[in-house]
Amino acid sequence: MLSTGKRAFLSLLLNHLATGPNTAAMEHKKTRRKDPRSRDGGGNINGRYWMFGLHAVRVALANPARKKHRLILSLNAANQLADEITLCGLEPEISDARKFSAPLDPSSVHQGAALETEPLEWGDVAEVCAPIDGRVALLLDRVTDPHNVGAILRSAEVFGAAAVIAPERHSAPETGALAKVASGALERQPYLRVRNLSDTMLEMKKAGYLMIGLDGLGETALTEAVAGCFDAPVGLVLGAEGPGLRERTRKTCDVLARITAASEFASLNVSNAAAVALFVANRNT
Amino acid sequence: MLSTGKRAFLSLLLNHLATGPNTAAMEHKKTRRKDPRSRDGGGNINGRYWMFGLHAVRVALANPARKKHRLILSLNAANQLADEITLCGLEPEISDARKFSAPLDPSSVHQGAALETEPLEWGDVAEVCAPIDGRVALLLDRVTDPHNVGAILRSAEVFGAAAVIAPERHSAPETGALAKVASGALERQPYLRVRNLSDTMLEMKKAGYLMIGLDGLGETALTEAVAGCFDAPVGLVLGAEGPGLRERTRKTCDVLARITAASEFASLNVSNAAAVALFVANRNT
Repeated sequence: MLSTGKRAFLSLLLNHLATGPNTAAMEHKKTRRKDPRSRDGGGNINGRYWMFGLHAVRVALANPARKKHRLILSLNAANQLADEITLCGLEPEISDARKFSAPLDPSSVHQGAALETEPLEWGDVAEVCAPIDGRVALLLDRVTDPHNVGAILRSAEVFGAAAVIAPERHSAPETGALAKVASGALERQPYLRVRNLSDTMLEMKKAGYLMIGLDGLGETALTEAVAGCFDAPVGLVLGAEGPGLRERTRKTCDVLARITAASEFASLNVSNAAAVALFVANRNT
Repeated sequence: MLSTGKRAFLSLLLNHLATGPNTAAMEHKKTRRKDPRSRDGGGNINGRYWMFGLHAVRVALANPARKKHRLILSLNAANQLADEITLCGLEPEISDARKFSAPLDPSSVHQGAALETEPLEWGDVAEVCAPIDGRVALLLDRVTDPHNVGAILRSAEVFGAAAVIAPERHSAPETGALAKVASGALERQPYLRVRNLSDTMLEMKKAGYLMIGLDGLGETALTEAVAGCFDAPVGLVLGAEGPGLRERTRKTCDVLARITAASEFASLNVSNAAAVALFVANRNT
């Protein structure tokens, strides 16, 4: 007996053979000419973006909360994703993997799988980060590198953070590159974009959060700073490498804490600093 | 008064103006035709490789232990690196930054600075990792991504690890990409390549090291495993994402420890796992 997924794949394959291998690609080409989005190579335009890579697309298809607009797959990828395709009910467009018709950056390792989607709606900070004892939220002040933010989402999920919060502007938007690095965590770990980071910090402080800013020149060791918070909900605030925390962000913190380094020249990559901070602040294990 | 560095830069500038802007590039082009290394785009051939980027080249020039073969700079980069050029005594070849003549991958963010060099010689494991109480060494089992290894070198320096040890084959060699991500740590943090990782682990165990393997299915929590070692020198052993530790590596560990995750789907990026493990094992702060 064939699984529903395999049956769906066979039906796709038959359609594809009947209409010829280039139909989907040609049809797509027409759309691309009309569509200015095709130039952006996977970025956020009109809220939509292209996610790519087998694993990222697989977990996105399986996520009922994710809006799915178009799915472009190689035959091989369609075979591998047969169960998820059946589950989500979106009809894939089949494309030759070597002349892949999704509007992606040429350097993207797409593995024959691309999904047009929109950033997930996670809800308000007040709701997602309701002030529960021992809870941790991570706040990023202008961390723009999608590789760092992707790795940070994975760490946030591992250490059970309520959310990763970043400003709408000057931070890494939800994109295909970010989704790939996040390796599935993007589907499960709330990533909230807010208008103004300091204002959000003030609201969270009113609700009971203690804000710990990570700063190489901080007077308190991180472990002490966290121990001083007892069971209060904690916000960990990290800036970008180089500029660090902005002045207003820094001033809004309750305490500035450092991860002590053995050498004065040494510094952690921001995603590694976030992993250590989340590990220290995770008082539930 | 001009500094020695600025004077050296002005002399370079005058030479450059006298001989015309393309001399260095043309001369280099001749060399490139003869030189099969030019095809590799920054990898290790005959032990030599091209390092690139202002910061990486700056710290490399200032490192007396580093062998320096050729230095190709834009006029702007030569100006910015004037002091380091004087210090190291290597005559730079000036090249147009837009038609940069160093044999680099086109996607390299070289900032007009490239240095041909060789991997640093750090000495033997027995010497660099002499078994001192509280000492930590990090061992990488087939971690091949230069971005991860570069970030790991930074974390190893921050937490005062004696060395990062990796097998000669199937791991990330010293390259321009690795040096750039390591952000200077490559000059200061011993990175040792060994013939066989398990054999090295056995020798280190004989010398007094306790080997803790990081493994998602490990029976002991990492914090407990480290506490159980008291002040003994510790080796932290990490595998690549996906395959994890190889069978023989796993068997050679004294204990397999886990970083507990809040979700069964969640996993840390390998450089983030290394940062957390180094933080936990650093008993000197």
